[in-house]
Amino acid sequence: MREVAIIGVGAHATGQFTEKPLKELGYTAIWGALDDAGVKPADINVAYVGNSIGGLLTGQEGVRGQVVLQHSGITGIPIVNVENACASAATALRGAWLEVASGAVDVALAVGVEKMFIGDSARTIGALSAVSELDLSQMGMQFTTSYAIHPKINLKARMKEYGWTLADFAKPAVKNSFNGSLNPLAQHRRALTIEQVVQSRIVVDPLTLYMCASISDGAAAAVVCSADLAKKFTSKTPVRIASCVLRSGVYRLPDDNRPDTAATTAQAAYEVAGIGPEDLEAVELHDAMAPAELMLYERLGLCGPGEGPKLIDDGITMLQGRVPVNPSGGLCSRGHPVGATGLLQIAELVWQMRGEAGERQIDKRPKVAMAQNQGGLLLGQDSAVYSCTILKT
Amino acid sequence: MREVAIIGVGAHATGQFTEKPLKELGYTAIWGALDDAGVKPADINVAYVGNSIGGLLTGQEGVRGQVVLQHSGITGIPIVNVENACASAATALRGAWLEVASGAVDVALAVGVEKMFIGDSARTIGALSAVSELDLSQMGMQFTTSYAIHPKINLKARMKEYGWTLADFAKPAVKNSFNGSLNPLAQHRRALTIEQVVQSRIVVDPLTLYMCASISDGAAAAVVCSADLAKKFTSKTPVRIASCVLRSGVYRLPDDNRPDTAATTAQAAYEVAGIGPEDLEAVELHDAMAPAELMLYERLGLCGPGEGPKLIDDGITMLQGRVPVNPSGGLCSRGHPVGATGLLQIAELVWQMRGEAGERQIDKRPKVAMAQNQGGLLLGQDSAVYSCTILKT
Repeated sequence: MREVAIIGVGAHATGQFTEKPLKELGYTAIWGALDDAGVKPADINVAYVGNSIGGLLTGQEGVRGQVVLQHSGITGIPIVNVENACASAATALRGAWLEVASGAVDVALAVGVEKMFIGDSARTIGALSAVSELDLSQMGMQFTTSYAIHPKINLKARMKEYGWTLADFAKPAVKNSFNGSLNPLAQHRRALTIEQVVQSRIVVDPLTLYMCASISDGAAAAVVCSADLAKKFTSKTPVRIASCVLRSGVYRLPDDNRPDTAATTAQAAYEVAGIGPEDLEAVELHDAMAPAELMLYERLGLCGPGEGPKLIDDGITMLQGRVPVNPSGGLCSRGHPVGATGLLQIAELVWQMRGEAGERQIDKRPKVAMAQNQGGLLLGQDSAVYSCTILKT
Repeated sequence: MREVAIIGVGAHATGQFTEKPLKELGYTAIWGALDDAGVKPADINVAYVGNSIGGLLTGQEGVRGQVVLQHSGITGIPIVNVENACASAATALRGAWLEVASGAVDVALAVGVEKMFIGDSARTIGALSAVSELDLSQMGMQFTTSYAIHPKINLKARMKEYGWTLADFAKPAVKNSFNGSLNPLAQHRRALTIEQVVQSRIVVDPLTLYMCASISDGAAAAVVCSADLAKKFTSKTPVRIASCVLRSGVYRLPDDNRPDTAATTAQAAYEVAGIGPEDLEAVELHDAMAPAELMLYERLGLCGPGEGPKLIDDGITMLQGRVPVNPSGGLCSRGHPVGATGLLQIAELVWQMRGEAGERQIDKRPKVAMAQNQGGLLLGQDSAVYSCTILKT
């Protein structure tokens, strides 16, 4: 397998863009990535397009990627539409990586694009929860609710087990809101305090509004090529994909003996890249709800059980800490257009690794970074999707 | 790139299976393929699942493949959901092929599954035509209509240009209905006459009912592995994938100077496989409407302009002819569950190449065969998808 480099990234701002259809959100990201990489549409040999709920929300069920790409002037190549819930864009990147790593092609494009604002948020939430063929007996609640109140998992259980407080849950949101306040592409650009987060209205006890990612429109794209060709296109620092691991499996409940797929996916990514969590200098991770960040710290090996809040208290995962987490603002502040999120994470890390992140630039420019992405978390089912991508300069 | 072999195939019958959800259609195909290949679920390293309209029709928008596969006992691996209209299953096969060819994994599963009968055929047709972000000014008609009456293309124009008659259009349907009558998995198992096809009710002039593929439920799957590992799993003849080409591009109109993507895709497949159309000993092609088969003969290089009907008159593409086309019965008789069709074609060719096709077995067992698949044909847009896979024993 050949070494693969990301040579260009682009993103549309996240937020509410009611007037823009899927293809216009995609256009900005795709042309941003092409310009950044110094490649022309004709240089692209293959494209992977991630989108999750466009069929239900925009009515564009078939050939979504072809529609988005032809609007951007890209045609005549293999185009693969991929879906993996909130990991759809990460899946698109993995497809592009494999095409180039295998030697099948030299240059590939990965796109993630999602339009969630359709003027009917019930329909948007319904589409996110579309699980008609799963056993609904233990479901019947949307993501936020199941995170918050499912008797076996997460928040209430963790408060009991670890002694975590509401203020602890708020800490990632506060940290990330500061980062997001510095990000011109972020959906929410205001630094919050612990008090503001804790006292914002309750969505589902114990989750408050500012602990939850919002509905969001957005798009991101990346151009990847064989590492030895990078200089042909651009003088910018190429960012190598050291590992790109995708898994589907179990979101582990406490009384479940099966391995936790979030942890095994990260472990596999570390092994392939030949590094450990101690080597990471920046992380973008899937904080769809702020407390998830605390739990992911454990699964990624950044800290031991229950130590998440301390990692923030000690400043370790803050913007200028030892391993900054979610410098973009993360899902709660940067935004979470589901099928675009995986590539929004990649774009942020590439900008950070090149020193192009503006006001939110990590002073010690990261040389090793991880994007962690997940989706389809349906309790006790085998349908959770996890992705870890490790980047190096 | 390593040589890749198909070592097992499976299919659910095509037809109306109102009581079966997506996952149960998939189960029969997946377990058929695993049994046929002699592999256990734990042997599968990665899976690609093709489906086109499940989001709109069954409400299962996200992680469709994970739902189907967990029902079949397969979990813990990378699962990639792919969509490419009627070429969704062909796209899944290409994904599985690339995983193994690249050396990323040894054994991969490709699945295509589609549920179209939901008791509301208007919704099914609506989902097939879901093109909300395309320019609808020249559309506003579903597939059958655009094939039949679009002023610039196809049927009426060909009748004028080539002197083709309604009887000529009926010939592929008649040939394929005979093949389908011998196929226990086919949706329509009755041999038709030219008169029956021509005199069946008009769907859109000049297309009659028996010239059109029906709404259909179905599923198919294939297990692929590195060719040098085939014997480890099964004593059956491995079927090598000599080329697997996917393209998106233009369905060319007569006054259009752009290359025709159906033809360029076939040409690329021939080149990679190192063969020409004269070497083919069996073909499964995308006869969603019977006259399309006549036009595809030209695009695949099986005959010159206007010579399609003669190829059938001379018996060349009949079941025991020089190059049998659609031995399964094709889309009009075997059935066309859109996201499964590409792998139904592959399953048929594998059975034929192994001499396992029962009553419809081609006497001279084919050693070189092509599966041709296409979708998303939106006139004059760049969103047509084409796939050609060449198989060899």
